Amino acid sequence: MPAVFEQQEYKKRVQATKQAMQKQGIDLLVISQPANMNYLIGYDGWSFYVHQVVLVSLDQDEPMWLGRGMDANGARLTTNLSEDNIREYADDYVQSLVKHPMHFVADVIKEKGWGSKKIGVEMDQFYFTHRNYVELEKSLPQATFKDANALVNWVRVVKSEAEITFLKRAGKIAERVMQTAVDTIDVGVRECDAAAAIAYAQYAGTDEFAGDYPSIVPLMMAGEAASTPHLTWTEKKYQKDEAVLLELAGVYRHYHSPIARTIFLGKNPPALMQETADVVMDGLAKTLDFVKPGVTAEQVEETWRKAIAHSKVVKESRLGYSIGVNYPPDWGEQTISLRPGDKTVIQEDMALHLIPGIWYKDVGFEVDATIRVTATGNESLFDYPIQLFLK
Amino acid sequence: MPAVFEQQEYKKRVQATKQAMQKQGIDLLVISQPANMNYLIGYDGWSFYVHQVVLVSLDQDEPMWLGRGMDANGARLTTNLSEDNIREYADDYVQSLVKHPMHFVADVIKEKGWGSKKIGVEMDQFYFTHRNYVELEKSLPQATFKDANALVNWVRVVKSEAEITFLKRAGKIAERVMQTAVDTIDVGVRECDAAAAIAYAQYAGTDEFAGDYPSIVPLMMAGEAASTPHLTWTEKKYQKDEAVLLELAGVYRHYHSPIARTIFLGKNPPALMQETADVVMDGLAKTLDFVKPGVTAEQVEETWRKAIAHSKVVKESRLGYSIGVNYPPDWGEQTISLRPGDKTVIQEDMALHLIPGIWYKDVGFEVDATIRVTATGNESLFDYPIQLFLK
Repeated sequence: MPAVFEQQEYKKRVQATKQAMQKQGIDLLVISQPANMNYLIGYDGWSFYVHQVVLVSLDQDEPMWLGRGMDANGARLTTNLSEDNIREYADDYVQSLVKHPMHFVADVIKEKGWGSKKIGVEMDQFYFTHRNYVELEKSLPQATFKDANALVNWVRVVKSEAEITFLKRAGKIAERVMQTAVDTIDVGVRECDAAAAIAYAQYAGTDEFAGDYPSIVPLMMAGEAASTPHLTWTEKKYQKDEAVLLELAGVYRHYHSPIARTIFLGKNPPALMQETADVVMDGLAKTLDFVKPGVTAEQVEETWRKAIAHSKVVKESRLGYSIGVNYPPDWGEQTISLRPGDKTVIQEDMALHLIPGIWYKDVGFEVDATIRVTATGNESLFDYPIQLFLK
Repeated sequence: MPAVFEQQEYKKRVQATKQAMQKQGIDLLVISQPANMNYLIGYDGWSFYVHQVVLVSLDQDEPMWLGRGMDANGARLTTNLSEDNIREYADDYVQSLVKHPMHFVADVIKEKGWGSKKIGVEMDQFYFTHRNYVELEKSLPQATFKDANALVNWVRVVKSEAEITFLKRAGKIAERVMQTAVDTIDVGVRECDAAAAIAYAQYAGTDEFAGDYPSIVPLMMAGEAASTPHLTWTEKKYQKDEAVLLELAGVYRHYHSPIARTIFLGKNPPALMQETADVVMDGLAKTLDFVKPGVTAEQVEETWRKAIAHSKVVKESRLGYSIGVNYPPDWGEQTISLRPGDKTVIQEDMALHLIPGIWYKDVGFEVDATIRVTATGNESLFDYPIQLFLK
């Protein structure tokens, strides 16, 4: 049970990270975002509810994993790190009022002779709390701290061939997940039973590939809840003529292929919903025609905005974002946002989630495209009908 | 679809929070931990992957919800807050390099005349990043900041009658979840298919009550992975004579009843596993006999340690912790830890998870007790056999 990718793949990732560090004048990187930890060394495990970090230093080949004692065997099982680069802290550091895991991290940094280096930390990532910063700064008075908030996230933005294989497996799972939702959701069915069937499909995956837990649980807004995007489920039964907005995902080893569709439980959706659906699906198709290497993120959004300008549909939030490997609470990569001002140039082997969700006061509509950018355009990670589903 | 508890319940919670604020010299509380937000106003939704807060001010009756525009309808649907106390920021604050949601929070704080108050923030909670602190401090130069890290968590520690009802429903779901695991896991079954069946049971709940997503996905370590506690599942098939360590939960509206058991896929478990199981189950029973109002957290752990002192079993990590309402990534409350040094006096209507998990190099064993403290002792939240399951 070694790390899931070839060792060469991790080496390349660490190399690219070190190049980014050099550009930004950073000697040592302290990484606490779980997806970045996984990306750099393969580390996996639901242990991110306690403090843990990966260290990347310019003067050492291999990164280091530092975490709670009981998780060190997890690091041995899921990474290829040598024993000296797996360091565990005692359990009395956990949620203590006296000790803090960052004291342990600082001790290792000093032991390695890195105590007066320029240290990059992820200042706006969940899992890097304010206290983490305070304790590190106090324990390393000779160090200079720099914000390396999305440094590794940006290294992740262009996917390797192996990652694209994983994303396509996630796409295959996404097809099954959405089909399960469309098959299960119906008048009289409890929301929670539909959620259960969806989760089953997410975890079981395909006959060949295990599914994985998504970074966001099934979002499935029905009835009045369809006016907002982030609610889950209750014991309520679906009603006739109710709309159900679904934002789901297929996941393979933490690589995500989100998939969003809308079901209307009746034959005659409200005129506003049908109009919105038509405008959005047409606008999305025109936008996808435009996405290819060389265009910018804001141009993609502009294409969308122009394509729907003839209608009453307004999308105030960003059109989409970059995806890849992730852990709760978000499957967005926190790099590219498809919105005005984002001048990132789209490149081959980026992966994007375009999610033109529209939530009015009384009705909403969601559909999406999850794509890999190819040499000349883009391809969907899954093969699933783009339509408003009537049942 | 109003908040799930009676309005009176929320009023009491806010009142108790304000008392704690007064004791600690805090005028205004900025809460970003999702469970604390839910506890104070009922707010629900998987929107915690962007910055959002609840404000509690000594000089205002009602708390305020501040979050992303698209989630404001979620706040309207899941809380009883008046419209003026729901404030939404524009989407270009999301993951921007220029704007930050804490600028918006600071603007509201200034508008309300709270800009020079003593402000409590949750300095070591995930979801309160270092950048949150930096931006708040910069935007509110007249304010004094104090650490209110677990202030609301400690208000949560004694449960109301309504909360105990929820915890018992979670316990009912936990019984089904573990039974599903015991029924499903067997030689030749893929780990991911067992995980899928478990998730189905978690989300579907009972015929009466919807299940909810747990704050930690099914942890199910098999074979060599049984040497560590926080791994999930793969496409691997269970093997004969393999141990499977399960740490699961039943959840009702974010209230958790964790449940942990161990299955051995054979008739003859290794001697070390059977011995460990016997010692741990006996020690746990003796510890439960001891837990009642008036004893301290460290005395509970001491009772456990003495009960297993005659054996070779050593448990280096804490024996357990307080539970209740929670959101990913942790179902622990971050208040009571059953370990040396924690002098918290156990009170009626606290809820505790005792999880004496033992992980050796080659073999592990897990079992647990999830209890509510009664007037004279304690009661289990679920009715499920305590044993090493042989299949």
